[in-house]
Amino acid sequence: MDNAKYSDGPCPIARGLTRVGDAWSMMILRDAGGGATRFDQFQKNLGIAPNILTRRLAALTENGLLERRRYSEHPPRDEYLLTAAGRDFLPVLFAFGAWGGRHFGDADFSRLIETGRGAEVEPVVVDRASGVALAEMDLRIQPPAGRGAV
Amino acid sequence: MDNAKYSDGPCPIARGLTRVGDAWSMMILRDAGGGATRFDQFQKNLGIAPNILTRRLAALTENGLLERRRYSEHPPRDEYLLTAAGRDFLPVLFAFGAWGGRHFGDADFSRLIETGRGAEVEPVVVDRASGVALAEMDLRIQPPAGRGAV
Repeated sequence: MDNAKYSDGPCPIARGLTRVGDAWSMMILRDAGGGATRFDQFQKNLGIAPNILTRRLAALTENGLLERRRYSEHPPRDEYLLTAAGRDFLPVLFAFGAWGGRHFGDADFSRLIETGRGAEVEPVVVDRASGVALAEMDLRIQPPAGRGAV
Repeated sequence: MDNAKYSDGPCPIARGLTRVGDAWSMMILRDAGGGATRFDQFQKNLGIAPNILTRRLAALTENGLLERRRYSEHPPRDEYLLTAAGRDFLPVLFAFGAWGGRHFGDADFSRLIETGRGAEVEPVVVDRASGVALAEMDLRIQPPAGRGAV
């Protein structure tokens, strides 16, 4: 996607996609949410090629989703921790997963569990003020005044 | 991403990402949600290269997010309509946009408006049963019994 056009444009979806707009980045954030921090953990969990993982971790760090921290000086080793923006992405990812589970098979899926109660959680996107599910609303996107395409 | 590994795996996030795991596909669905149906509309709105748009429309159709319908026989012309699964993706996309707006600049963003009331909508991901925002819950992903990595 043309980052120069979209990274500072009026559409917040496009802005987000210029930062986290590919499957591997989202899978890395998924695993970071599950507690993975180290290169080897991501690599083993995901089966991702090391050069691709290196690039994705660098981009996620540069874009403020992950923070790199050195945990060993000899030998030099870094780990990657979710930033506040990265942690805030997890509910979006879980809503994405709920959608994936609804439409792409009826397998014995991984489930999302609230740690304390042990209850299964079903993510749904609602309007904060009214609590109404967006799926039940008639919505439109309104560009900023004086601007056209979003 | 290795589609063979993930497209039928236990993680519904990964399953979804093998169907809609790139920025252009999500932007096409965004525009389809806004009423675009025709190749030229998507092409003009997005500034996407025609060969890439052709591939993305074909993949989204094959994966059940869009449905192709012929609207003219002479000359032959098709349009692309959101399926139920494609329409169900829009709330996820709006939650993604809300996240993008929170973290990537304080511009005069496009806003999400409920058509009837004209009120601005703020998407938030909550647990359907309790109504609690996922951001306020301590969550873990539980793989299906007898399976390891997700």
